[in-house]
Amino acid sequence: MKLAIDAMGGDHAPESVIRGCEIALETYEDLKVTLVGNEADIKKYIQPSDRVEILHTEVTIEGEDSPVKAVRRKKDSSMVLAIQQVKEGKADAAISAGNTGALMTAGLLVVGRIKGIERPALSPMLPTLGGEGFLLLDVGANMDSKASHLYQYAVMGDVYMKKVRKVVKPRIGLLNVGTEAGKGTELTKEVFELLENSSMEFVGNVEARDLLEGVADVVVCDGFSGNLVLKSIEGTALSLFSILKRELTSTFKNKLAAGILKPAFKQVKKQMDYSEYGGAGLFGLNAPIIKAHGSSNDRAFFNAIRQAKTMHDENVVATIRQELVKNENDTEQKKEL
Amino acid sequence: MKLAIDAMGGDHAPESVIRGCEIALETYEDLKVTLVGNEADIKKYIQPSDRVEILHTEVTIEGEDSPVKAVRRKKDSSMVLAIQQVKEGKADAAISAGNTGALMTAGLLVVGRIKGIERPALSPMLPTLGGEGFLLLDVGANMDSKASHLYQYAVMGDVYMKKVRKVVKPRIGLLNVGTEAGKGTELTKEVFELLENSSMEFVGNVEARDLLEGVADVVVCDGFSGNLVLKSIEGTALSLFSILKRELTSTFKNKLAAGILKPAFKQVKKQMDYSEYGGAGLFGLNAPIIKAHGSSNDRAFFNAIRQAKTMHDENVVATIRQELVKNENDTEQKKEL
Repeated sequence: MKLAIDAMGGDHAPESVIRGCEIALETYEDLKVTLVGNEADIKKYIQPSDRVEILHTEVTIEGEDSPVKAVRRKKDSSMVLAIQQVKEGKADAAISAGNTGALMTAGLLVVGRIKGIERPALSPMLPTLGGEGFLLLDVGANMDSKASHLYQYAVMGDVYMKKVRKVVKPRIGLLNVGTEAGKGTELTKEVFELLENSSMEFVGNVEARDLLEGVADVVVCDGFSGNLVLKSIEGTALSLFSILKRELTSTFKNKLAAGILKPAFKQVKKQMDYSEYGGAGLFGLNAPIIKAHGSSNDRAFFNAIRQAKTMHDENVVATIRQELVKNENDTEQKKEL
Repeated sequence: MKLAIDAMGGDHAPESVIRGCEIALETYEDLKVTLVGNEADIKKYIQPSDRVEILHTEVTIEGEDSPVKAVRRKKDSSMVLAIQQVKEGKADAAISAGNTGALMTAGLLVVGRIKGIERPALSPMLPTLGGEGFLLLDVGANMDSKASHLYQYAVMGDVYMKKVRKVVKPRIGLLNVGTEAGKGTELTKEVFELLENSSMEFVGNVEARDLLEGVADVVVCDGFSGNLVLKSIEGTALSLFSILKRELTSTFKNKLAAGILKPAFKQVKKQMDYSEYGGAGLFGLNAPIIKAHGSSNDRAFFNAIRQAKTMHDENVVATIRQELVKNENDTEQKKEL
């Protein structure tokens, strides 16, 4: 397969992006990449190879750029050109660690939605105490959501977890304020009914409190709620680590003891580090488009590549297409009965 | 002042409830309480005093009871009778550590809303790294919210922070998925405009990631979102503590080092413990009604009493009434201009 990579996106670009590519090229013999960005900068880090192409551009989209404007005006930015490679059939998938909103916009405008998908979803894997992780979608691709959007998120999440994470029967949960049926907003009540009548393994409402315990493999919600939950989890973890650091280094005795525990703390941080699962998928587009974390290091970027490669190799996009058709037929049959 | 207390609500009732009352009676000479619940059980823990009355009942509302049904059918439960004391003018405020939904229902049905308030809000104080804490409302009293509801939450939060937490100019933030104006749902866009045109100290959109950093003194949101954020913060903190415990006791050496750090860990937990700020207020009702944490110990229950007392002594309900009238006049004047 061939991957188009925005070499200039993310806090540690292009170095970490390219080092991540190197790991991937060593790991997967059938992988080819096109690195899009400043050729001179890229060449500092990459070994020449017939599996690596460089597409030169000096334009980049910045983190603070307004997504829609940036995509429209910076058509020859590294991000848009990478996505364009997919559109033109020159690459099978694309990855960027840059501006999330711009990547969504470029994905939508250039690669486009799968026919039948009403809204794409931004879909990261989050950590669980047991280490399996869960998929949360949507976390902000789409703000004002309808029940049918959330239903389609479930369908896409179900396919992804089966194909990429090899979960045989993914447990689908609906993010809600209580576990009992009938809880929540008009929207969640409607979605609950749709999911209950689906052939998916719907485990009912799940509460934000229990997410890290691993109550479901796929958790669906509107993009506004998902974004709040994602950022609450991140913010709480960061704040807690910062208080811990302050307290555990407050005296000399504490510092000594904390020194002994350093490997244990590293282990805890590793368990909360979701870059192991890859980046956030932009599910619902006509090709795998992955948003790697902005702070991706070599390993995290490699994980995003592995994720894009697995999505491609396992035909995730085609399977989502089939599931949509199957679902439509099911619904029509039910209507006829 | 006189406080009606549901002696049977919460995980450690009646003991912790009553011990909390004892601390409060020692602290505030002008405080009288009516303890509602099983007289024999209550008498095990309380010293006889002319400042303590007991209202006997053997009926209690359980945590798993359906709120509306429970309030309608268990009219002589300790919770409903405590609220009834307020309605009848026999008490100035009421506290329960029992079923949150039932307390909201009883508050609404028995004590009623402040005239002009469209929806009451469940309003806990949450911790911040600096220790000042912030008020988050609504966290679940009301699911499908309108812009005017959130605007009124801001008005109520503003009054509360001024009167009870002595913040001179409370910074009002709107919970959103980004800090820029124009972010979020149709709802948040509408609320943003209302708050921007108000006389309150509106600091704009705030992100869930920054809440514990203390970005605002009052954070308003719809009840569905607030509930998710509250439970995400709680769940993440609990999960992190549980991983920490597992890792830090995994070897003998670790256990020894962790033992030295015990006071530091206690300090961290204390900083995340929001029972120091009291319980969650049911703002918008005709009297201070406080939901103490279900797991309240003596001290946490005392804090809820202190909170109810301050709300009463500082005329929070009357001030909210005045602010509503003032706001209406302002809006009418603006319309005329």
